[in-house]
Amino acid sequence: MSGVRIAVDAMGGDHAPREVVRGAISYAASHADEVILVGDLPRIEREIADYGHGRPASVRFVDAPDVIGMSDHPAQAIRAKRRSSIVVATNLVREDEADAVVSAGSTGATMAAAIFRLGRIEGIDRPALPAHMVTATGPVMLLDVGANVDSSPDNLVQFAAMGAIFAERVLKVTRPRIGLLNIGEEEEKGDALTREAYTRLRASSLNFVGNVEAHEMIGHAADVVVCDGFVGNVVIKFFEGPTSNRGRWRRSRCSP
Amino acid sequence: MSGVRIAVDAMGGDHAPREVVRGAISYAASHADEVILVGDLPRIEREIADYGHGRPASVRFVDAPDVIGMSDHPAQAIRAKRRSSIVVATNLVREDEADAVVSAGSTGATMAAAIFRLGRIEGIDRPALPAHMVTATGPVMLLDVGANVDSSPDNLVQFAAMGAIFAERVLKVTRPRIGLLNIGEEEEKGDALTREAYTRLRASSLNFVGNVEAHEMIGHAADVVVCDGFVGNVVIKFFEGPTSNRGRWRRSRCSP
Repeated sequence: MSGVRIAVDAMGGDHAPREVVRGAISYAASHADEVILVGDLPRIEREIADYGHGRPASVRFVDAPDVIGMSDHPAQAIRAKRRSSIVVATNLVREDEADAVVSAGSTGATMAAAIFRLGRIEGIDRPALPAHMVTATGPVMLLDVGANVDSSPDNLVQFAAMGAIFAERVLKVTRPRIGLLNIGEEEEKGDALTREAYTRLRASSLNFVGNVEAHEMIGHAADVVVCDGFVGNVVIKFFEGPTSNRGRWRRSRCSP
Repeated sequence: MSGVRIAVDAMGGDHAPREVVRGAISYAASHADEVILVGDLPRIEREIADYGHGRPASVRFVDAPDVIGMSDHPAQAIRAKRRSSIVVATNLVREDEADAVVSAGSTGATMAAAIFRLGRIEGIDRPALPAHMVTATGPVMLLDVGANVDSSPDNLVQFAAMGAIFAERVLKVTRPRIGLLNIGEEEEKGDALTREAYTRLRASSLNFVGNVEAHEMIGHAADVVVCDGFVGNVVIKFFEGPTSNRGRWRRSRCSP
């Protein structure tokens, strides 16, 4: 194989396993990567038969009869359901049977499986969830959008470091500009968290461009914007309102 | 007079005094309220002459030669510029010469003038800034949107009480539904602030309907939604991005 080996949690997601299996088959047919579908094998095989596109040679299967639901407590479920698709898929990375793991299932369970089975990079205390906002001139990566609440200033610096590496390696941005989501442009603006994070980001070796106000993300004021997960989660859910079926916002406006 | 007496800061706002004076004249001509224009009298008189709609008998004038700019430090400016339009206008309320004061100028200076000249209602530790979000089925009042950062759980309960009174008296909502902006529906969700605020709101006599996620505001899940001013300010500025000239967001999307 010249590509990478991707373990896919076939059971995770709103329309799993059907849409996950179809996506994986479709991907494998057109890429040099190996795809390892992990889940309830009889159901996966039925979905492949229904799809009617055959089975690319680069698709492998690993059985995992348990499923972690959206209502399960993530950390408890990871410990209790050792044969669940997300745990088995993550173990494939741990055992060097796969290079990466992908899941559209419970975010908390995926996060917990990664922490408990793969651990953290040295110097990183907490993982972060990123969201990509596509602007007219390129993507803005916002993190954390919900993995952490009550973050410390050091957490925010660590999110910035992870975001910078992701932007460089994956988004191919040279020397990514790092912004701090804040409620004013000036250094002294913000709450206790952002004021201290500002000082530490400026003292870091990152390409810190200062505070970024929420409306400036849209103007691509930075490539990576860091914030506490409570704030980031509110932002992405607020954004979902008018742009998805989750909200019913019509001809709305917001005045201070 | 059968109406109320409204002191208007003629010098505050992006297009003051011109647009403020025109708005005040126009309002006074069609309402039973008394309007007191406060500011630089020669400039106000010039604007009235330029407007060419005469001067309704219900418009009065009070001279205030100083102006507080957007770059002035609010609390310092309030103390140093005692003849500024916002201080003089606020003093009219203090001295019972007016019933209310309106300003489109510096938010911080208006807030500071109100705190120092009028004081706070008993039981309220900090004032709050509200924003109205107009949904398909009625307005949602979000507060605080930037007067406070690092709020306490008690601050949030006080914001809820003020919001409830405003919704009842001004928006004419019977028994307004109070929501807590949070990152999940369940009671145990959130950061330290919102988890404790949840407990106190539930124990209050307010019509507390629980946590409201950001996308649910758009569906009018509550009449009043409370949050810390950092979070609320990020929300309204994020909203401004795609809907105003402040941002340049085109055909954007946001994926978690």
